[in-house]
Amino acid sequence: MEAKLLSASSPPSFVVHMGTKFSRSSFVLTSLTREFPVFKLHCSAGLSKKAKKRVDASENLTLKSVRCSLIRQEDSIIFSLLERAQYCYNENTYDPEAFSMDGFHGSLVGRYTSSDEHPFFPDDLPNHVLPHLENPQVLHPIADTININPKVWQMYFKNIIPKLAKEGDDGNCRSTAICDTMCLQALSKRIHYGKYVAECKYRASPDDYEAAIREQVLFMSCIQIKPVAGYGLMINNLQDRDRLMSLLTYPLVEESVKKRVEMKTMTYGQVVKDDAFKDEEGDSVYKIKPSLVADIYGDWIMPLTKEVQVEYLLRRLDLDGSQGN
Amino acid sequence: MEAKLLSASSPPSFVVHMGTKFSRSSFVLTSLTREFPVFKLHCSAGLSKKAKKRVDASENLTLKSVRCSLIRQEDSIIFSLLERAQYCYNENTYDPEAFSMDGFHGSLVGRYTSSDEHPFFPDDLPNHVLPHLENPQVLHPIADTININPKVWQMYFKNIIPKLAKEGDDGNCRSTAICDTMCLQALSKRIHYGKYVAECKYRASPDDYEAAIREQVLFMSCIQIKPVAGYGLMINNLQDRDRLMSLLTYPLVEESVKKRVEMKTMTYGQVVKDDAFKDEEGDSVYKIKPSLVADIYGDWIMPLTKEVQVEYLLRRLDLDGSQGN
Repeated sequence: MEAKLLSASSPPSFVVHMGTKFSRSSFVLTSLTREFPVFKLHCSAGLSKKAKKRVDASENLTLKSVRCSLIRQEDSIIFSLLERAQYCYNENTYDPEAFSMDGFHGSLVGRYTSSDEHPFFPDDLPNHVLPHLENPQVLHPIADTININPKVWQMYFKNIIPKLAKEGDDGNCRSTAICDTMCLQALSKRIHYGKYVAECKYRASPDDYEAAIREQVLFMSCIQIKPVAGYGLMINNLQDRDRLMSLLTYPLVEESVKKRVEMKTMTYGQVVKDDAFKDEEGDSVYKIKPSLVADIYGDWIMPLTKEVQVEYLLRRLDLDGSQGN
Repeated sequence: MEAKLLSASSPPSFVVHMGTKFSRSSFVLTSLTREFPVFKLHCSAGLSKKAKKRVDASENLTLKSVRCSLIRQEDSIIFSLLERAQYCYNENTYDPEAFSMDGFHGSLVGRYTSSDEHPFFPDDLPNHVLPHLENPQVLHPIADTININPKVWQMYFKNIIPKLAKEGDDGNCRSTAICDTMCLQALSKRIHYGKYVAECKYRASPDDYEAAIREQVLFMSCIQIKPVAGYGLMINNLQDRDRLMSLLTYPLVEESVKKRVEMKTMTYGQVVKDDAFKDEEGDSVYKIKPSLVADIYGDWIMPLTKEVQVEYLLRRLDLDGSQGN
């Protein structure tokens, strides 16, 4: 088994290790390349002699370590149930006939076929088996060309993981890879939601945005910068001359988001004891540093979301007969 | 896209719909059969004419609905980061050489190859590509034959989902299937951890358990019941005559687990507002009914865990040269 029994017995803490303490030769990342693919399934190649020996770290099985693991699993169960509870029953999910196909029966999950999902490995996707969603298209079709997941990937492994995960190895590499995948999916979705934010803002004040877009495009053509997916940061660095970015930036709103996210992290990240509600607030113990997620929002998530908004708006005026409004 | 914009705009609530309100013809479940496989990937069959038309429900895009979705996504991001934070950095996860194989490079996730993971579709697993974990085996080898996931599946779809999910369809069938998968994995892991609980208890008082096991096996042979994986409930029903089950049952501990789980659900499931910490406790709004998870633990998770413990212990004395102690 994976070494969860041992890892679960380590006490929760909000003391996090900084990236500078990490030795990670594989972290030479560029914005358009990805390091260490998280996982690949269905590979049938044979093991080579280079494969490292893997040790079952749970040899010292104790009732205490099992209990710690069971208590930690309560949180995972609650988190997963809370995630499920945000959706309706959705009978089609379970209806073998809902998306039935010749030669196949069963409900299907089709990731990356909807416009709020963005693949990290777009060249390595399975064939689509779900019927495509019906129009109307709510975003300008150019939205489909914007995918800054290389930056999301880099941000996560280079800037978040070193602050989030303790240094070392507890043997849970499978669970680690699955958690990484869930984190990357959630971060990527949030950041690319900038397309919808931008479309809403554009529709609210089309005149202001059209003027700003034309000014920005003109400025970029003068300095010979062309908008290319994944290079929005170059635009971001020109913010002082960027009317478009200034239209999209609301410092007070961003501060309130950071404040709310920190409060949520304090709430969801606290270690609940049997007598939790009798403790004073000062006694709270947190699984991660409460300000960590707020910092991630302020330093990465919101700037990258605005980068997506800029990239979308810069091409929002491209002529296309099928655009949303 | 999936209809998250609409669904996210619905207010959180702990009012849940009861299963009796559901019309679900596909819910004729037996303990050893599974209804509606959650999803199958990599199917290349063509769509038939029976496929239902799928509608993009996000047509009425509004900034409010986008904002609601972004706020809800904060929770998903925090939950996923909290899950990741329980593990160390685990460099092997990202080391292309860690589990390298001839003709393949890249880190791998191998589900259901460790003894704390149990497949729901054991006949439909990909080939193992990870090196097998090294001994020592901490459980009696008979543990590998115990898998009550058919009951976990039935419990989840028949007893949990009707109380957890609102009736109706918000169009998010892909996200629903993925959330169901995460819930089933978490529940299955917790319930099958009974094997480790039982092994710990056995090692703590081998004489008491050996006597109880022999008495139970003798009793079952007298009434011609043989222990078969998945049929533990039959044993459970005989609890009044079951010394083994009574050895495993601690009513006070079970009550404290339910109490702790309810407190955790109140904490993790509360809707955090910007002024959350200024509110009185009475003003809290919960995403799900706080007592729901406690009831699930009391009615299903703990009984099924004890069922796993009984099934394990009934065969704990089987002769096997490689057993744990």
